[in-house]
Amino acid sequence: MAENAQAGARVDGRHDDQIRPVTIETSFFDHAEGSASIRMGKTWVVCAATVEERQPPWLKGTNRGWVTAEYGMLPRAVSRRRKREPGSRGLEIQRLVGRTLRAIVDLRGLPLHTITLDCDVLNADGGTRTAAVTGAFVALCEACRWMASEGRILKIPIQDQVAGLGIGLVKGQVLSDLCYAEDSEAAVDTNLFMTASGQFVGIHASAEIRPFGAEDLENFVRVARPGFEQLFAVQREALGLPPDEPFRAAALTSG
Amino acid sequence: MAENAQAGARVDGRHDDQIRPVTIETSFFDHAEGSASIRMGKTWVVCAATVEERQPPWLKGTNRGWVTAEYGMLPRAVSRRRKREPGSRGLEIQRLVGRTLRAIVDLRGLPLHTITLDCDVLNADGGTRTAAVTGAFVALCEACRWMASEGRILKIPIQDQVAGLGIGLVKGQVLSDLCYAEDSEAAVDTNLFMTASGQFVGIHASAEIRPFGAEDLENFVRVARPGFEQLFAVQREALGLPPDEPFRAAALTSG
Amino acid sequence: MAENAQAGARVDGRHDDQIRPVTIETSFFDHAEGSASIRMGKTWVVCAATVEERQPPWLKGTNRGWVTAEYGMLPRAVSRRRKREPGSRGLEIQRLVGRTLRAIVDLRGLPLHTITLDCDVLNADGGTRTAAVTGAFVALCEACRWMASEGRILKIPIQDQVAGLGIGLVKGQVLSDLCYAEDSEAAVDTNLFMTASGQFVGIHASAEIRPFGAEDLENFVRVARPGFEQLFAVQREALGLPPDEPFRAAALTSG
Amino acid sequence: MAENAQAGARVDGRHDDQIRPVTIETSFFDHAEGSASIRMGKTWVVCAATVEERQPPWLKGTNRGWVTAEYGMLPRAVSRRRKREPGSRGLEIQRLVGRTLRAIVDLRGLPLHTITLDCDVLNADGGTRTAAVTGAFVALCEACRWMASEGRILKIPIQDQVAGLGIGLVKGQVLSDLCYAEDSEAAVDTNLFMTASGQFVGIHASAEIRPFGAEDLENFVRVARPGFEQLFAVQREALGLPPDEPFRAAALTSG
Amino acid sequence: MAENAQAGARVDGRHDDQIRPVTIETSFFDHAEGSASIRMGKTWVVCAATVEERQPPWLKGTNRGWVTAEYGMLPRAVSRRRKREPGSRGLEIQRLVGRTLRAIVDLRGLPLHTITLDCDVLNADGGTRTAAVTGAFVALCEACRWMASEGRILKIPIQDQVAGLGIGLVKGQVLSDLCYAEDSEAAVDTNLFMTASGQFVGIHASAEIRPFGAEDLENFVRVARPGFEQLFAVQREALGLPPDEPFRAAALTSG
Amino acid sequence: MAENAQAGARVDGRHDDQIRPVTIETSFFDHAEGSASIRMGKTWVVCAATVEERQPPWLKGTNRGWVTAEYGMLPRAVSRRRKREPGSRGLEIQRLVGRTLRAIVDLRGLPLHTITLDCDVLNADGGTRTAAVTGAFVALCEACRWMASEGRILKIPIQDQVAGLGIGLVKGQVLSDLCYAEDSEAAVDTNLFMTASGQFVGIHASAEIRPFGAEDLENFVRVARPGFEQLFAVQREALGLPPDEPFRAAALTSG
Repeated sequence: MAENAQAGARVDGRHDDQIRPVTIETSFFDHAEGSASIRMGKTWVVCAATVEERQPPWLKGTNRGWVTAEYGMLPRAVSRRRKREPGSRGLEIQRLVGRTLRAIVDLRGLPLHTITLDCDVLNADGGTRTAAVTGAFVALCEACRWMASEGRILKIPIQDQVAGLGIGLVKGQVLSDLCYAEDSEAAVDTNLFMTASGQFVGIHASAEIRPFGAEDLENFVRVARPGFEQLFAVQREALGLPPDEPFRAAALTSG
Repeated sequence: MAENAQAGARVDGRHDDQIRPVTIETSFFDHAEGSASIRMGKTWVVCAATVEERQPPWLKGTNRGWVTAEYGMLPRAVSRRRKREPGSRGLEIQRLVGRTLRAIVDLRGLPLHTITLDCDVLNADGGTRTAAVTGAFVALCEACRWMASEGRILKIPIQDQVAGLGIGLVKGQVLSDLCYAEDSEAAVDTNLFMTASGQFVGIHASAEIRPFGAEDLENFVRVARPGFEQLFAVQREALGLPPDEPFRAAALTSG
Repeated sequence: MAENAQAGARVDGRHDDQIRPVTIETSFFDHAEGSASIRMGKTWVVCAATVEERQPPWLKGTNRGWVTAEYGMLPRAVSRRRKREPGSRGLEIQRLVGRTLRAIVDLRGLPLHTITLDCDVLNADGGTRTAAVTGAFVALCEACRWMASEGRILKIPIQDQVAGLGIGLVKGQVLSDLCYAEDSEAAVDTNLFMTASGQFVGIHASAEIRPFGAEDLENFVRVARPGFEQLFAVQREALGLPPDEPFRAAALTSG
Repeated sequence: MAENAQAGARVDGRHDDQIRPVTIETSFFDHAEGSASIRMGKTWVVCAATVEERQPPWLKGTNRGWVTAEYGMLPRAVSRRRKREPGSRGLEIQRLVGRTLRAIVDLRGLPLHTITLDCDVLNADGGTRTAAVTGAFVALCEACRWMASEGRILKIPIQDQVAGLGIGLVKGQVLSDLCYAEDSEAAVDTNLFMTASGQFVGIHASAEIRPFGAEDLENFVRVARPGFEQLFAVQREALGLPPDEPFRAAALTSG
Repeated sequence: MAENAQAGARVDGRHDDQIRPVTIETSFFDHAEGSASIRMGKTWVVCAATVEERQPPWLKGTNRGWVTAEYGMLPRAVSRRRKREPGSRGLEIQRLVGRTLRAIVDLRGLPLHTITLDCDVLNADGGTRTAAVTGAFVALCEACRWMASEGRILKIPIQDQVAGLGIGLVKGQVLSDLCYAEDSEAAVDTNLFMTASGQFVGIHASAEIRPFGAEDLENFVRVARPGFEQLFAVQREALGLPPDEPFRAAALTSG
Repeated sequence: MAENAQAGARVDGRHDDQIRPVTIETSFFDHAEGSASIRMGKTWVVCAATVEERQPPWLKGTNRGWVTAEYGMLPRAVSRRRKREPGSRGLEIQRLVGRTLRAIVDLRGLPLHTITLDCDVLNADGGTRTAAVTGAFVALCEACRWMASEGRILKIPIQDQVAGLGIGLVKGQVLSDLCYAEDSEAAVDTNLFMTASGQFVGIHASAEIRPFGAEDLENFVRVARPGFEQLFAVQREALGLPPDEPFRAAALTSG
């Protein structure tokens, strides 16, 4: 765990590589085929998975399914009331969530179905897009478990866990899981999406105040590691899997 | 309390005039000037009050303020996923919520301000528009309390409590606080909006299967009484007021 | 007839329970399957019924038809020019018109057809939504008569007449068929939709200035009676039926 | 008057250069500053003029006013129900109406005002855009008369009358004021907009079936003459001016 | 060639009936079935023809095809940045382009296909709608040639060449191919669309400052002749046809 | 330069780290304050910079300016015709372009101005978003040069060059500047945005087929280097700066 006493404490006293308290609860929505509620500190995102027997037009003629996402925010999830219409920021995020989840799903294993992940932010304090991915993964697992129980699929087509974390360079320090106050001061803002087996699904780093170098990038990845370990364990626990053992999709249906 | 054993039990075993378990929690949103979360059985609506120093165009030249509302629903608040765009049903409901709240506010007491009540349904099981009014009243009180503490108003301009209840004629019985299963079978569907002093703010009765008579209307009002008493007590309790004493706006700021 | 000399005369000298001069003309539109033009005082609404051989999605798999409505207003039907786009007020009204008409139609008797009632306000002086219902009923009858003559239905599936009236509490008096000047001063504004057999199809009462009691509601209904009698007679006469005999749908095709 | 017995009669028996029965009524709308209702055969367009004290952005810094138009159609003005949203055809027509009227107005004589002409088609049987111009001219005159009476302008800034007529080449014959049945068979479809002094404001000729020559164009203009004479006389009469004397704007205010 | 020395020179020194330097290049777009880039002076329009095997709804049940157009403008094709959304001007122009092209195509010769001509203005200096037609004709020919080579049609269904020219009355002179500076001063603005055989497909003349007479119209046509001759030769040359021989559609496929 | 003979040649025979032929031309648009046309192989993007004296709302009260972007695509820039409306992909890209350019501009040096970069794709063959950034940088420089010449700014507020390159992992090889055929087969798709001084402004890597490791990321950066060197030299040359010397903003105005 990083030592940051001399460099200046974080606004909430966390270590550099320490993420906020995180909880994930499944079956949040009565009506959804799968769902999850995730809280990371004050950030709260609820994720609903809808299973529909339909294919997007570009898959016609194949046997493959699809995974997509929508992202919304209640008007007062934020400090200054936002209009309900999704802006271009929301559209960018929902594309990101869909793309990230598809990277760990074998779409041939979802024949002729579309799963839509609705991620809605009830309260925002930074890191909503990464929390959306972490929570949507759990909702997706629950939806696949439901599909298996309904006999729509024979095996769960999920190949690995995926989660997201926001890392930033703030006043010279590399910090994990930025809250809003830190995020708005970050010189570089990075969102990492990783699998439980330690691979990347997505890296999105943007210079906000100053350009950055390859060594910064290495630091971002290093500082993120402990947080990812914790997120994967919390996901497994929420799904009723052993938190300390590697993820096995087959275990989702073995209960 | 009504006897309905011989006429056929309700789907959840309630008496005809018995409402579902109801809880109201204030300060649901971190960022809003006032807010409330209301649950009536499985129906769950969260209400955020936003205070802005602006007037709608039609009040220019006066000293009056305004109270308005927006109504939304998460895509999987319901059984079959709904699109995010508000349809005409949503627009109708938000007009109703705004109009109902304005009826108990002295708009001259909100000089040059607009309060917007965002009512979002997290889970729907019938009665979302009436729950939205009951919850939004509490969020509005909290917002006025905040305005008083900020010195924006000298006294709370709320003249009475208001709450809503859905009553219906289902298979010959008049039932209070219909859940979705009951509502979809109702021959007549009525939404009542009343004040704690026993007056009406709105009555909206619609024949769904058969027309109805004046005596039906009297029954609707009679069956609704105990539920309204309970709702007003729960509102007062949530606001930290004595649940068994009449509502006094001045008491909101006397703590 | 009510005595209101001592309480203050109405702006146009009417008795409290007296409606404005009303005329209904059928076959207003050359191209529509049924249509009507209704004038109540200066309020003028034209209604066109369109018959289409299609079902809305939610009736697929059944044999039932549907009745729906749209409501529009020419930009200078009102004092201050309105934009052409329907606002939320227009959407609310068109839902009301559709719902009210469906309550007196046996939808099983319209197999696989949709009838759309377009109600457009040419001139507005209060009471446009109630006039829209009263006129649309006549257009709907004419459209059903056309369907019968075309052999699309064997009998007219209309179960009763329906009409609408706006009643209000203005300066302490309960007045029938409010004109705009009265409506804008009403403490309580009520729209009643009744059948010729004296039942309610809809009651929509809203406190505009002060809450109201059960006795007010009784007064609204009592004061509305003579106006409804007159409206039903005018509807029958417009349709070529005996104005002084009860409505029989079968008589629509017996000519 | 043209002889067309040998060439084949028109669908309604008119001579080639004979227009349909035309009537124009002023003050159609209670609330508009000027208005007119025009009927040409079964085509019926109502025109409302709205006077507003505002300038479009591109005139800021000048003293000039503006004249613009909107064009709409009730859903059942036509044989097959149209959606309410204006399509590109409607937008094209309203640009045409505005441009045509501006050509006979001295915009320096409308200081800082905008006049909007809303032209709405109640019933369509061909020629709605030309009828819209002919009727809107009358509504515009009435609005200017109102402005003069209110002291907003010192003199009427209208320089000449303008009217429109549709001419077409149908089965080898050049016909004036096409009705819908003729228009849909026209090889060439032309809309002429002329002043009472015999000049053109607009000519819009389009080959629908076959290209046309300069001599066709001359024929169109020749056949249109008697109809224009009649339209100008009907406009003057509707405005209370001597139908048989040339138009003088000053006469509009001399009553 | 007209003498205009005494009357005042044009801004770029051209004779009254002289058009700007014009070039047309085919196969501008890699991906389109046919395309052309046309430059007339500084006006630059690129036209792409898309061939799709679909019919518009109103041709269902027939064997005919359709030709349609869309018109766009890059935001800085003009002096003051324009929004990307097509305004009503753009919609008017694209209707004009489609209608003009259809007049020279035998739609029975495009069985069950739709050809869409996308005309986008890269740089505007007046005359974009006429350049769009002149260029789109070439793109359309190239698309038909592609269809023939693919065996989708047996013969090219194009009956004649079509091109467009803007003519105006500027400070008393009739000028051909107005540039923007001339166009904005024109008293009368006319767009002519002609075939190579000397017939009109469209004439759209609008008084901008003063009405005009029949003799003006004759002058417009006379002044336009040499420009049209030149445009037709440039079109033929771009298509690889002999510039000095009459257009024969069959020659498009004889290479 | 990488050896890739044994691993399989690229579709166009390039080395792994070789970019496509690139040309940049300035002053592409007559009317824009700055502009550039960039071609990389068959990908062609035109960029226009618009300078306006206005601030976005969130900078009110400060002295800072703003840089933003819009991104569009002609319908047939691609193989299958796209609708003109920007989809969520387009909105995502324009946010990226704006954010990337702002990272190398000192916004305090653009007092009270907004510069909008319109990037429109004329032809697409992969890498349009990176080409948009590379070209928009040049347009931005030209616009700043114009501002300096107009006396609106005293010095050019551009701190470094920025360009973009798409790198991908295709069939086990890391390739620079993917064309469309390569991009659609990439297992990992990465967009890098770098400064001439070798720092990152943005890294956006997404797993398309399989997750990737830290060593992949290092390879992406390594393979991108020679391409970036070339892009920066081409940018400098287009701007009339010495291609082989480091970028100095001051040199933009020293001519």
